[in-house]
Amino acid sequence: MAKELTPRNENYAQWYNDLVLKADLAENSAVRGCMVIKPYGYAIWEKMQSILDGMFKKTGHSNAYFPLFIPKSFFSKEASHVEGFAKECAVVTHYRLKKDEATGEIIVDETAKLEEELIVRPTSETIIWNTYKKWIQSYRDLPILINQWANVVRWEMRTRLFLRTTEFLWQEGHTAHATETEALEEADKIINLYADFAENYMALPVIKGSKTEEERFAGALDTYAIEAMMQDGKALQSGTSHFLGQNFAKAFDVKFTSKEGKLEHVWATSWGVSTRLMGALVMAHSDDNGLVLPPQLAPIQVVIVPIYKSEEEFARVSESALKIKEELENSGHSVKFDVRDTHKPGWKFAEWEMKGVPVRIAIGPRDLDNGTVEIARRDTLEKQVVSKDSVKEVVGGLMEEIQQNIFKKAFDFRTKNTCRVDDWEEFKDIMKNRPGFVMAHWDGTKETEIKIKEETKATIRCIPFDSEKEEGKCIFSGKPSDKRVLFAMAY
Amino acid sequence: MAKELTPRNENYAQWYNDLVLKADLAENSAVRGCMVIKPYGYAIWEKMQSILDGMFKKTGHSNAYFPLFIPKSFFSKEASHVEGFAKECAVVTHYRLKKDEATGEIIVDETAKLEEELIVRPTSETIIWNTYKKWIQSYRDLPILINQWANVVRWEMRTRLFLRTTEFLWQEGHTAHATETEALEEADKIINLYADFAENYMALPVIKGSKTEEERFAGALDTYAIEAMMQDGKALQSGTSHFLGQNFAKAFDVKFTSKEGKLEHVWATSWGVSTRLMGALVMAHSDDNGLVLPPQLAPIQVVIVPIYKSEEEFARVSESALKIKEELENSGHSVKFDVRDTHKPGWKFAEWEMKGVPVRIAIGPRDLDNGTVEIARRDTLEKQVVSKDSVKEVVGGLMEEIQQNIFKKAFDFRTKNTCRVDDWEEFKDIMKNRPGFVMAHWDGTKETEIKIKEETKATIRCIPFDSEKEEGKCIFSGKPSDKRVLFAMAY
Repeated sequence: MAKELTPRNENYAQWYNDLVLKADLAENSAVRGCMVIKPYGYAIWEKMQSILDGMFKKTGHSNAYFPLFIPKSFFSKEASHVEGFAKECAVVTHYRLKKDEATGEIIVDETAKLEEELIVRPTSETIIWNTYKKWIQSYRDLPILINQWANVVRWEMRTRLFLRTTEFLWQEGHTAHATETEALEEADKIINLYADFAENYMALPVIKGSKTEEERFAGALDTYAIEAMMQDGKALQSGTSHFLGQNFAKAFDVKFTSKEGKLEHVWATSWGVSTRLMGALVMAHSDDNGLVLPPQLAPIQVVIVPIYKSEEEFARVSESALKIKEELENSGHSVKFDVRDTHKPGWKFAEWEMKGVPVRIAIGPRDLDNGTVEIARRDTLEKQVVSKDSVKEVVGGLMEEIQQNIFKKAFDFRTKNTCRVDDWEEFKDIMKNRPGFVMAHWDGTKETEIKIKEETKATIRCIPFDSEKEEGKCIFSGKPSDKRVLFAMAY
Repeated sequence: MAKELTPRNENYAQWYNDLVLKADLAENSAVRGCMVIKPYGYAIWEKMQSILDGMFKKTGHSNAYFPLFIPKSFFSKEASHVEGFAKECAVVTHYRLKKDEATGEIIVDETAKLEEELIVRPTSETIIWNTYKKWIQSYRDLPILINQWANVVRWEMRTRLFLRTTEFLWQEGHTAHATETEALEEADKIINLYADFAENYMALPVIKGSKTEEERFAGALDTYAIEAMMQDGKALQSGTSHFLGQNFAKAFDVKFTSKEGKLEHVWATSWGVSTRLMGALVMAHSDDNGLVLPPQLAPIQVVIVPIYKSEEEFARVSESALKIKEELENSGHSVKFDVRDTHKPGWKFAEWEMKGVPVRIAIGPRDLDNGTVEIARRDTLEKQVVSKDSVKEVVGGLMEEIQQNIFKKAFDFRTKNTCRVDDWEEFKDIMKNRPGFVMAHWDGTKETEIKIKEETKATIRCIPFDSEKEEGKCIFSGKPSDKRVLFAMAY
């Protein structure tokens, strides 16, 4: 752990990249834009998956799996969908390689050309609705509440680990309903589920709202999103839930016989969160010493580092450490006892700080004599010496305290960096010099939205659900507006 | 549940296909060779995943994630690997589509051609060893014990749901070790882990052994496999564990400094099981009424079907059913109370039989009067009427009994259909007319193995680990042999 991170205030983007690498979360691969998610990073993602999966199942959803490949023609069926997704796709054109007899090299076998090209899924609405067509005849077949954990590919020109990669992992829910109301309720239920996950597990305060038409998912009638503030004041869209109306049902001709015997098109939603959440988690909470993980998502919640000089001391310290480990594990905490003899305690302290382990316990010979241990918490870096009999209680308390403190810190940061702005010059100044969330009036037109983006790079992140009615004038055009929307620079 | 399955003895292949469709496990998709795994099928796969994942973690493995795409040149680096895998690949050649201005159709943008084609991974040794190169410098970095849950693509000409599909889901372990012994131990540990999973969870007796050189994984020095017998007497390879020697380390130049300070190539293993296991599960145990699932893998272990004529009766039956459901759930069983008013009890019985739910409980008004319920077990179709106070005990007992009985049935079937053969005519007759496992002598040459395959379509499934030394003569060539190997027709 010799090399330090670039400090946040020096270069935030570099700090992020350094941290993702040094905390062993992920790295770039030999394939442009595709990352390798390393075991420690993947363990955090697995925790996220497991919690979200439980939440989906509790709300009646089942998992299934649909093909990786989508026939090219499927994209053309939903007009706005193709505009949004067909452009940045990996296209499979052949199904065989062969040895070039002349050079001995492996080349594409031109005789093995597909009749119709296959697209590696950038999202699965089309292949899924083509399947649902076979599954849905009657209202009795509805609702269909399916989720899929999968990899998807969107050809990105500029990539950043977790935040924007050519291949990423995600879950995509695809539901089918008999009525518009039911589909709207589903979309709403899911955005609330995502907010619950973000706030109570990731310790990430989010703002729920609707996207503008310009920022909507390609093919949706409405897109709900949760937006979170990173430590550089920029917004990160952390999850979306789309009300698709009957667009995909019409594109794929999916009709059902209603209770009243009428043939109607099916109503749909889709929704997803991705490994992008890993980026949000890192950027929202971590500091110049490394990751800060909320206990709810930490693969290792407690690390015990032994302090010793001789083998005899190690044996005594180990005995005590193993007892504490067992006690904490019995209380449901995940604990690592770091017995590596290849590194000194100070090095280990720095490493576990880099990796964001919420609680560190150090035990040395003096502790044994005094019946104590030293407990350090990662979020505040505070240390305390406690009696070894109270370790279980102290650690249990710290788990809740750290979880809450991380959330509060992020919440306070967001509050401090959110303001209501009514003056265009002030708006521009904020976006340029001290980005944050700006609640401002907007005249509701696409033209204004685009012009604001052109001049400041700021976008409307969402129209918050809780934005109150308020007479005002558009920050840019001066035209009347009846509520404020959320502007920010965004990832 | 009107339509019945094709009986096994009439057309085993058709029976299998009917069953996979009618039990709602999977179906073919619009993409040639790719399947849709439906929620019920996926729920069984999730159970398999969760158990295997726990076993991998318990033996010190971590999960990670590597890219879907592999640069074409990577395949050429390991000579035998490219022979085995480069031929049947999905090749990505372009990264953009565009609208054809003339026709309005969506076409491949020829200006967006990749400099080097990308292969959709058929297996990940190459991309992973290219990554390990960066991770391994010293013996301190070893062992690396990583597993990945992923989708892979092998372009198959003839596909069958679960058994052979162009895209399939699997796990692939890739480990790196400092010594040959350690790598061999790992390969051995995993094949035993797979056998444990097959026998104790899938209730599937398997034979462990080594593959012949001809049947080995492309790039391996040794391949261990578990082979199971299906109800048509054919073998299904259900898991493989490969000792890769230093082949991939050499191909990707992965060296480490040993404890003694010498620079050496790293030793490797890889191993995997796939959604093919779903096919094995179906084919080994099911009958002409539908699926038979071992309780350990059944998404629904107990279904409760209410019998009633009036709403009042339904209310009374429900009250009792819900109590039983709660009691069974508290004992750790997964229980479904089938309250659909759209279907009659007889229809429901047939449906849950088709879906292989191990235990069915029926409760009607007469049961309420008598304080009883009717319990039916799926494996034997036996019914018994028991006091409702003993339901918990009876069901608990049945779970173990059914699990064991299914295993025993498969074990006895295999025993009955396995024989030692020393006569070539008999060998041919068996393979042609009543396939089973044949233990026969083989002279150890590739030529003989190929000729036997040409004449009978039978292959050497494995050289069983427990095959005893025994002087004999090759069944085909008459040349000397010192042990019997396992021949069978295979999937």
